[in-house]
Amino acid sequence: MRGTVGELGEFGLIRELTSRLTTTEAVRLGPGDDAAVVAAPDRRVVASTDVLLEGRHFRRDWSTAYDVGRKAAAQNLADIAAMGAVPTALLLGLVVPASLAATWPVELMDGIRDECQVAGAAVVGGDVVGGDAITVAITALGDLGGREAVTRSGARPGDVVAVTGWLGWSAAGYAVLSRGFRSPRAFVEAHRRPEPPYHAGPAAADLGATAMTDVSDGLVADLGHIAAASGVHIDLRSADVDVPAQMHDIGQAVGVDPLHWVLTGGEDHAIVATFPPDTKLPARWRVIGAVSPTSGPPLVTVDGAPWDEAGGWDHFTHG
Amino acid sequence: MRGTVGELGEFGLIRELTSRLTTTEAVRLGPGDDAAVVAAPDRRVVASTDVLLEGRHFRRDWSTAYDVGRKAAAQNLADIAAMGAVPTALLLGLVVPASLAATWPVELMDGIRDECQVAGAAVVGGDVVGGDAITVAITALGDLGGREAVTRSGARPGDVVAVTGWLGWSAAGYAVLSRGFRSPRAFVEAHRRPEPPYHAGPAAADLGATAMTDVSDGLVADLGHIAAASGVHIDLRSADVDVPAQMHDIGQAVGVDPLHWVLTGGEDHAIVATFPPDTKLPARWRVIGAVSPTSGPPLVTVDGAPWDEAGGWDHFTHG
Repeated sequence: MRGTVGELGEFGLIRELTSRLTTTEAVRLGPGDDAAVVAAPDRRVVASTDVLLEGRHFRRDWSTAYDVGRKAAAQNLADIAAMGAVPTALLLGLVVPASLAATWPVELMDGIRDECQVAGAAVVGGDVVGGDAITVAITALGDLGGREAVTRSGARPGDVVAVTGWLGWSAAGYAVLSRGFRSPRAFVEAHRRPEPPYHAGPAAADLGATAMTDVSDGLVADLGHIAAASGVHIDLRSADVDVPAQMHDIGQAVGVDPLHWVLTGGEDHAIVATFPPDTKLPARWRVIGAVSPTSGPPLVTVDGAPWDEAGGWDHFTHG
Repeated sequence: MRGTVGELGEFGLIRELTSRLTTTEAVRLGPGDDAAVVAAPDRRVVASTDVLLEGRHFRRDWSTAYDVGRKAAAQNLADIAAMGAVPTALLLGLVVPASLAATWPVELMDGIRDECQVAGAAVVGGDVVGGDAITVAITALGDLGGREAVTRSGARPGDVVAVTGWLGWSAAGYAVLSRGFRSPRAFVEAHRRPEPPYHAGPAAADLGATAMTDVSDGLVADLGHIAAASGVHIDLRSADVDVPAQMHDIGQAVGVDPLHWVLTGGEDHAIVATFPPDTKLPARWRVIGAVSPTSGPPLVTVDGAPWDEAGGWDHFTHG
């Protein structure tokens, strides 16, 4: 494809984008009408919205449009999985400058489509408008299949804390990229394209998870959300948190304790949950801590002590 | 409330926004978790996304934040109604500059909440990020209540074309505002805050509407979408299209044929549908045209002739 978004025009671009989509059985009516219709066999629908901005959430010199699409979709689909639901559909609100090469939104859509396929979902609708800053607003929908939604507020003293998926890989990749390197490739790839363990969300709900979230702000920060919502204390055992050997090497190269990446790095979209202590967890879950009562404010500690660098990412003050 | 969005911070702003929300029976889990859970009793969910940009879709000197909220919500909720569904929930993706007064997003949310209440829906989730351009990305959900979704593709030769709601009022208000006037107030208000006839969508589905859409690009353009999707010809009778007397006065004042506003003005979100010819329509529906077969390409005519100013709004070329 040649030319810019402006040359293609709004309707031309929408035609191009929708022509690339695939569908699933859950899609009763796809893009092109006033609204889409998606199956919701559970009689409830799970829904989540995220907005990504160029410069803040992605950089075009670091990530291809395809990778941005994969990542944007993954971020939202992981939110659905972290409720214990199976992702079904995704809607895209897209702002693109008229001067942008038309291949960019097209490859973005390819990435979104492919990530949806990984999660079992499909793109069912959206909106495209011209504007100065590339903005990707995604809404994902999912079905609970009869499960109770696993919120952040159900953690109980005595529960274990367990995690599955990747932790700190995206942050280590970011550290590498921000220092001008393009390798080690595994971490750079992890930053460009996270791989959330979508299936683990519904599976955790079936196993009796009492609270669950995906790790998007960082493990300590996201467990802080669970601690606050549940009114409990959570202590992590750093020795049980896996820090891959290669991450140690990067840490040494750039002067960062890699445990920092694992505990505070977001964007890998691992899934962390609390379970009753006798839960038999599948092999890919790692127990990394325990839930206890709190007499003071809800709190996350690491090896019994406050983690100084805890706290969420604030887009206005840190951005 | 004092200060800017940046001073309040992302989490402070989200707290402030969610504290103002109301809920409905359909909301099983509201904002604050990874995702919301909304009832979908029909086992299908209707979903639509729209993006509004400052400068392109609204101006802060013409519209209050509250009005922008009402309008942004109305635009999306009308899409749901135009499928024959009842709106249930709305999600908001919001980009706001750190320098913006915190009252602006708060009043925007008040407007979104109130428009949702008019339609019977509730805000269930969203995302707020800092960025340069105010961007409002909204996804609305709805329930079909056992009805078949009314698409744009079911119009059949012999059907009548009927419309309910306001037509051209927003465009006339825009014409007034863009010439520096603030009155007549009814039209300026209509531009700032549309009043879609939400109930008419599901009611039309129950009456057997064969095709339906809300008027967002203009009557001729939106009927063009129905003609194209249905493979038919649609002729409008201009004498049956209501042009209010006051609109004639404005037209004379600014040198515009008011029929232009009625036929091409979007943003009032009237609902236009096709019905079998023997359908008994309620009083507020107005029959304005007829569907016939087409030997050539699908086409909308006015009094048998092409309407020169037909065509959709292209955000890249007209913006």
